[in-house]
Amino acid sequence: MSTAEETAGGDTQPWGEVTPDAARRLLLAAVEAFAERGYHATTTRDIAGRAGMSPAALYIHYKTKEELLHRISRIGHEKALDILRTASGGDGAATERLADAVSSFVRWHARGRTTARVVQYELDSLGPDARAEIVGLRRQVDAEVRGIIEDGVRSGEFDVPDVPGTTLAVLSLCIDVARWFNVDGPRTPEEVGALYADLVLRMVGAGAAATS
Amino acid sequence: MSTAEETAGGDTQPWGEVTPDAARRLLLAAVEAFAERGYHATTTRDIAGRAGMSPAALYIHYKTKEELLHRISRIGHEKALDILRTASGGDGAATERLADAVSSFVRWHARGRTTARVVQYELDSLGPDARAEIVGLRRQVDAEVRGIIEDGVRSGEFDVPDVPGTTLAVLSLCIDVARWFNVDGPRTPEEVGALYADLVLRMVGAGAAATS
Repeated sequence: MSTAEETAGGDTQPWGEVTPDAARRLLLAAVEAFAERGYHATTTRDIAGRAGMSPAALYIHYKTKEELLHRISRIGHEKALDILRTASGGDGAATERLADAVSSFVRWHARGRTTARVVQYELDSLGPDARAEIVGLRRQVDAEVRGIIEDGVRSGEFDVPDVPGTTLAVLSLCIDVARWFNVDGPRTPEEVGALYADLVLRMVGAGAAATS
Repeated sequence: MSTAEETAGGDTQPWGEVTPDAARRLLLAAVEAFAERGYHATTTRDIAGRAGMSPAALYIHYKTKEELLHRISRIGHEKALDILRTASGGDGAATERLADAVSSFVRWHARGRTTARVVQYELDSLGPDARAEIVGLRRQVDAEVRGIIEDGVRSGEFDVPDVPGTTLAVLSLCIDVARWFNVDGPRTPEEVGALYADLVLRMVGAGAAATS
């Protein structure tokens, strides 16, 4: 099984595409520090220390703390978009593609919950330019899910009175997995992914359409 | 219309039950400070300053910053429980009670999003005793929603293969409203509440049961 979120990487092998290695280690340290203490309570000195580097070494790679948050947020959103585009561009019917999108997106949020929390909860800490870029990526994320739902409505697979509202709810349900998911809890990321795919198909009336 | 979350109060008239007035103003200032900068980046001096009081005046009411977070979290969770108990204890069938629970809970999270974010995202900042108390309240919140879903399954109104998982998803969907809701956005708290009640009834198969 080679799903989109495995290509993009969970918390197990994160930020593989960031080079050189020092820049990657600093991003990882920043994610951990922001998640533990919050963006505003974290200093660049804290981040450098966690990565086993000096503050001067950090400045070679990142000019400011905000640049670190911006990089984390951009990479996180680009991975989210990758996962949803892969699911959306699949060969199957809308029902299959929506189930794939939801289960992949949920697994990624469960596995990468530390990063996802930073990306989601520290959005207001970005400056106006960085924020505008991220908002643009979020619109594309939204468009991928909306596109699958629209396909299903057109093909008669789905019955959805409010497509934008349902799109919002589907994404919200997946994103909030990063808040509550617990590795010591009773469900694996795969089990939550399967449960949520089923619940979302019910939300879009896929079962009702199939049985009517 | 006198729904549960209006009795409990949104952001418009918050913390009315906290007395004396100075203690109430300090809680409000703490919510704003924690929401803006995070718990760890906020000092008791910041909170006292926002409330127009001296640090010494703060210590009359709250011994530590954690005590403020604990009070905020306890009051927030008790209100959540109030709202869900009111909906759950209504006269109607499970379908009606679940729709009422979801729409009330969503409206409350949309209106009180600043408080809800602090309550949800700073849970890990509580010490072990405070955290254990809040976890106990969260179990009761969960039990209210699960109880309505179980009623609906028993009465034949709902078709739910995984009751605990569906309960988790319903609560998660409502709670995440506090993250994304925007007062300048296209939807009012009432509209989101109505949309989500409809989506949740689909999740529990209420429509399918009604038409089959």
